[in-house]
Amino acid sequence: MAHFKPELLEKLIEVRGTSGDEGAIKDFILNYVNENKANWKSEVEVHHGEGFQDAIVLIFGKPRTAIFAHTDTIGFTVGYNNNLIKIGGPRTIDGMKLVGSDSQGEIETELMVIEDDEGNTTLKYVFDREIDRGTNLSFKPDFNLTDQHVQTPYLDNRLGVLNALTVCEDLENGAVVFSTYEEHGGGSVGFLGRFLYDNYKVRQALISDITWVTDGVQHDGGVAISMRDKAIPRRSFLNKIIALAKENKIKYQLEVESAGGSDGSMLQMTDLPFDWCFIGAPEDNVHSPTEKVYISDIEAMIELYKVLMKEI
Amino acid sequence: MAHFKPELLEKLIEVRGTSGDEGAIKDFILNYVNENKANWKSEVEVHHGEGFQDAIVLIFGKPRTAIFAHTDTIGFTVGYNNNLIKIGGPRTIDGMKLVGSDSQGEIETELMVIEDDEGNTTLKYVFDREIDRGTNLSFKPDFNLTDQHVQTPYLDNRLGVLNALTVCEDLENGAVVFSTYEEHGGGSVGFLGRFLYDNYKVRQALISDITWVTDGVQHDGGVAISMRDKAIPRRSFLNKIIALAKENKIKYQLEVESAGGSDGSMLQMTDLPFDWCFIGAPEDNVHSPTEKVYISDIEAMIELYKVLMKEI
Amino acid sequence: MAHFKPELLEKLIEVRGTSGDEGAIKDFILNYVNENKANWKSEVEVHHGEGFQDAIVLIFGKPRTAIFAHTDTIGFTVGYNNNLIKIGGPRTIDGMKLVGSDSQGEIETELMVIEDDEGNTTLKYVFDREIDRGTNLSFKPDFNLTDQHVQTPYLDNRLGVLNALTVCEDLENGAVVFSTYEEHGGGSVGFLGRFLYDNYKVRQALISDITWVTDGVQHDGGVAISMRDKAIPRRSFLNKIIALAKENKIKYQLEVESAGGSDGSMLQMTDLPFDWCFIGAPEDNVHSPTEKVYISDIEAMIELYKVLMKEI
Repeated sequence: MAHFKPELLEKLIEVRGTSGDEGAIKDFILNYVNENKANWKSEVEVHHGEGFQDAIVLIFGKPRTAIFAHTDTIGFTVGYNNNLIKIGGPRTIDGMKLVGSDSQGEIETELMVIEDDEGNTTLKYVFDREIDRGTNLSFKPDFNLTDQHVQTPYLDNRLGVLNALTVCEDLENGAVVFSTYEEHGGGSVGFLGRFLYDNYKVRQALISDITWVTDGVQHDGGVAISMRDKAIPRRSFLNKIIALAKENKIKYQLEVESAGGSDGSMLQMTDLPFDWCFIGAPEDNVHSPTEKVYISDIEAMIELYKVLMKEI
Repeated sequence: MAHFKPELLEKLIEVRGTSGDEGAIKDFILNYVNENKANWKSEVEVHHGEGFQDAIVLIFGKPRTAIFAHTDTIGFTVGYNNNLIKIGGPRTIDGMKLVGSDSQGEIETELMVIEDDEGNTTLKYVFDREIDRGTNLSFKPDFNLTDQHVQTPYLDNRLGVLNALTVCEDLENGAVVFSTYEEHGGGSVGFLGRFLYDNYKVRQALISDITWVTDGVQHDGGVAISMRDKAIPRRSFLNKIIALAKENKIKYQLEVESAGGSDGSMLQMTDLPFDWCFIGAPEDNVHSPTEKVYISDIEAMIELYKVLMKEI
Repeated sequence: MAHFKPELLEKLIEVRGTSGDEGAIKDFILNYVNENKANWKSEVEVHHGEGFQDAIVLIFGKPRTAIFAHTDTIGFTVGYNNNLIKIGGPRTIDGMKLVGSDSQGEIETELMVIEDDEGNTTLKYVFDREIDRGTNLSFKPDFNLTDQHVQTPYLDNRLGVLNALTVCEDLENGAVVFSTYEEHGGGSVGFLGRFLYDNYKVRQALISDITWVTDGVQHDGGVAISMRDKAIPRRSFLNKIIALAKENKIKYQLEVESAGGSDGSMLQMTDLPFDWCFIGAPEDNVHSPTEKVYISDIEAMIELYKVLMKEI
């Protein structure tokens, strides 16, 4: 029953890919699929390239449900005068290590957070040369694994990607989507959903992403099934999922939040009749370089996805 | 000329249906359509179920224009520690009566509004037991009718639904859409609009919903034709509607607002070339349990819809 | 190499067209196309009317890329009690001259900005009669040309329209889209993009619009290629464009902003896999009646568009 593959997770986290710049992580996933698909239970059809931007869609058998796992990460863009502009919503901690590359080569730099008298914050990088305008920087990988938990930047959402790739191993009927742009306003879920709906009549989606440890959702409490965040999934779809989790004795916890969004809320805004539900392990230190998730929750997440992809 | 059916309105208001949880109100409307369609002037084609979520589309003859009436209501979701999270934008008044049901049965509870020293507000329910996480609560029905007005929760938008069902009685060509999710970010108007556009080339929409009494829009002033709220309908479509209202001597008033949205603004955001206009009676005490609308304005609303569905 | 046509720009600026009310500017552009297309290098197919609202699409040869130029402007709607409500985000300067027309004829009025003790601002018009509710007002044209620059209201975006019309002259393969509603929440780019994608497989867009003079983008610095604003274009598309600008020795500057949107961000939100990039001359006094752009930057903008429409 041990599904969790920390070595693959570590490799996924080493590949850079801020929103809009997912070319390298797309190539990594494509390569992984090609090297491993021979060992998967069912044949897979791989869709990517023209008309898919940097996203990938895997089709197994006759899909009724799609897993959406976003491949992009939060980070920063280099602006004018050593300023940094956020990509998505990274936490900003003075001295944070950031990496990237530009026309002059590899970069390892530090974030400087400058606060003025009125509490306004400016973000700058500290480096011995000017970095090319528009260069994307992301958290420096720093992978820490114990028997109990994993702690590293970008569990959100390379853990969601790992979950999706793990489910592929014995998936018979289903779609697996590696989406882009989730951290920064979205933009790929619409055409990916339309591809699934037009070609396979798929209109059920599970959002393989990572959520927050809160008053109601705890480490080691099981995978979180989100009953709502800022957006509200359809109650009848939610009820089916909760019933299956219960019936299959998977350790889960119910999340009810007022804020936060995902590929699910993006799907909701499309011209498509998708039902969706966010299901993921909870993490601490969200959107920081020290995101932390319990391994027991990762195992419960993978188990629930395996059940749901069969049953709904 | 008396079109207004208070008995049907009262029944519509008794059926619960917060955004995302519109199964019961869908069933009620479907049932009403099936029981009454034999008395309607024209044949109706009813679309619902797979691919429609909890929405319904009625097609009469060769439709050129669609009425959109949203069936969902505002309310609250039960969170952690007796907290309540808003669905849409309900007003919150200490002591408000809320109803719902969970695994242990029917619930009638009260809203408690707690304000801290910094003016932050927390919403809680007061009940003798814990309510299941994720349970939806809505205003307790309280229907009050006089010769002059009707006052009850959820005139927004069960009155818009009543208007649509009344127009069905002698509609020859047109579409009537019962949409979902309007109060909480939208999400059904896109696929419903696409269904109408792809199958019937419909690209005109009238938004059957309830607006606000303001400086410029008064009780008993007639049905409000909204020239804009946050969104701006196309001027040429607006001009046609205003000309027809004038020509047909229907009592109307022109609304010009800077804020507020509707299924109209949602249609505007789709990938569809829909013209739309919000047309509805004005109400006082918006989004509270004491919403109030004048009957003369309801009559003007129904009359104008009957004219427009014939003429545009 | 002198491409800039100030006479045509002046005429474009005289035609009113706030968001949602683009009928007159659509007619002007259609008329211009019909009168000039005989002199253009290639045949053009003109799409407009039913299903296009007040937008226009021109198709030349086999298009791979579309230019999007929005035709609408910012302005104000007349509300109740002499109040004005913004259309888009106009700057509001006490005494600004505004023009429009209503049932009683032509209007030339002035903006009055009233600030109360708490810093709240009310906008009113000063006129010797009441203006019809819902009337749209816009900045009074005031065209100023020197050898160095042009200064007038509505360079944003009549200059983007001028650029698009100029590129038409020797365009062999490409689409040119005159969109609507850009200044006020968008709403036409979705169906226009779908038309291009479904009929011509076009999924590359250049946003012909005007940007801001800032710390990093200066007058006479060349055309700005925007690496991001609030939205982030796909890096691989951006890299192609920058490489072509460099290769063709066109004077350009790279923009990196945290805020601002365009038809590009709207395209990003559709259900279509469009790559897009905002490319435009920078202006001072944005969204005021004294917008100012350098002619050298206009020339660079036209040159870059001509190259890109051939090469990407």
